[in-house]
Amino acid sequence: MTKKTKIGLIQLKISNNKDFNLKNSIKKIREAKKKGAKIICVPELFLSNYFCKTENHSNFKLAEKIPSETSKIFCELARELKIILIISLFEKKISGMYHNTNLTINEKGKIVSKYRKMHIPDDPGYYEKFYFTPGDLGFKKVKTKFGNIGSLICWDQWFPEAARLTTLKGAELIFYPTAIGWHPNEKKRYGKSQLESWITIQKSHAIANGIFVAAINRVGVEKKGKRKIEFWGNSFVVDPSGNIVSKLNSKNEGILICDIDFRKVENVRQHWPFLRDRRIDAYRGLMNNPKDE
Amino acid sequence: MTKKTKIGLIQLKISNNKDFNLKNSIKKIREAKKKGAKIICVPELFLSNYFCKTENHSNFKLAEKIPSETSKIFCELARELKIILIISLFEKKISGMYHNTNLTINEKGKIVSKYRKMHIPDDPGYYEKFYFTPGDLGFKKVKTKFGNIGSLICWDQWFPEAARLTTLKGAELIFYPTAIGWHPNEKKRYGKSQLESWITIQKSHAIANGIFVAAINRVGVEKKGKRKIEFWGNSFVVDPSGNIVSKLNSKNEGILICDIDFRKVENVRQHWPFLRDRRIDAYRGLMNNPKDE
Repeated sequence: MTKKTKIGLIQLKISNNKDFNLKNSIKKIREAKKKGAKIICVPELFLSNYFCKTENHSNFKLAEKIPSETSKIFCELARELKIILIISLFEKKISGMYHNTNLTINEKGKIVSKYRKMHIPDDPGYYEKFYFTPGDLGFKKVKTKFGNIGSLICWDQWFPEAARLTTLKGAELIFYPTAIGWHPNEKKRYGKSQLESWITIQKSHAIANGIFVAAINRVGVEKKGKRKIEFWGNSFVVDPSGNIVSKLNSKNEGILICDIDFRKVENVRQHWPFLRDRRIDAYRGLMNNPKDE
Repeated sequence: MTKKTKIGLIQLKISNNKDFNLKNSIKKIREAKKKGAKIICVPELFLSNYFCKTENHSNFKLAEKIPSETSKIFCELARELKIILIISLFEKKISGMYHNTNLTINEKGKIVSKYRKMHIPDDPGYYEKFYFTPGDLGFKKVKTKFGNIGSLICWDQWFPEAARLTTLKGAELIFYPTAIGWHPNEKKRYGKSQLESWITIQKSHAIANGIFVAAINRVGVEKKGKRKIEFWGNSFVVDPSGNIVSKLNSKNEGILICDIDFRKVENVRQHWPFLRDRRIDAYRGLMNNPKDE
């Protein structure tokens, strides 16, 4: 069993030039590898500006059937660098069905897991329900050479169910590629509280489940028509006690390198044994929606 | 529908004299009422020192069959003050079956809900599995004159499932009577992180569910043989965005009075509509334990 590993989170500023984004991410993945990272993760939909700011049919042309040209590039990179790579792509399943998808690629360059975002947001400026069919592959653990990991995506992070199910599958470290930011006209009034909520909810997954959590966000202001989002960065890693052990800022690109000692998972779970005491006989209601008021 | 209410949390230092504890809590409940509180809640097992510090059969004599002399006193008090009261008792169900139980008493002095702690801890100094059968009444909402509320108890607060199920039943404000503190020999090294985790996980329930959360703890050092616990107080209220709106300190008794605007629940849920996007088709695994490794 892997006791220790080192992870790399690549916080990116993303342009409207796919080729630039591709090269920029590869360059930074190489840097992270040089710094010792064995599992590296990029932000959600890192190949393009966050196109869900508007509903525009022409954006479907960004979707890729997997394996795609892009996935092949990253498989080759993972093989060359002998690392685990988690990348986030706009996936075309069939005509008219598209997913927001994470690929986990192993050190031999093989796609070993595909996760399709299960919880899809829809909010002014985040029109994801227009683009993405909710995931149909469920929640997953990936056993890799460098640890048992899981990946979820952005909006999933607000759902304790997603982290719990991924934990129950056996993941001890969950990655959340993310694209989240402030609406400029909300930032002053709600910005601090929004960012804190985002951090709090992910800390809580670490605490409730006794796992490591890693969130990887983009930075920079992206604009489309009247829609403007300031992506808030703040990529971070939380340990199984809920302490932030490493964090980037809200402004700049960056590479976060963080040691992961998986022995902490068992230690924390022995001391705060929440998994022991779950009431699986009493949780059926979680599969229901509320009754009408 | 009740749009606004005012709640009172009674943070207590608890002695080994039941009569003193009874009188002290009644006095403070009266004070809270004078300050305008309409729903008032006391800490977990507020009538006695935290007896679960040791496993001692003689403690079972503290348990009460409900309605009990104590419950009648508080029913009368609720009726007199025209308030909702949530009290926490050591309940005897039948010989050999005991529960850690919340009673919700309405303004007419009637017990309108009984909640039996569903998740039971067992940790050095918190030997609750010796005393309490896990709850058999499930998770509940109580519709009261002053709002739709739920109550859970202490260890339940570490389980997102409990808060979610109580929310799905319709509660917009969850009370957590609690008895949690530091082991003196752990405080220096882990104390800050433990307290922060305890706050974080409850904030996360507010965020994930768009509800108010109120935690009511005791203060003071209690000792039994070599077992010593410093109860950490810090009773607090979180709004549906996860912001702490009011908090007591870690040392002193206190009465926390807090305005609750239930309209915030709907507003927050419209802006961060997590309940909309739950994947009830994919949550069956929550009723399972993990597979063997």
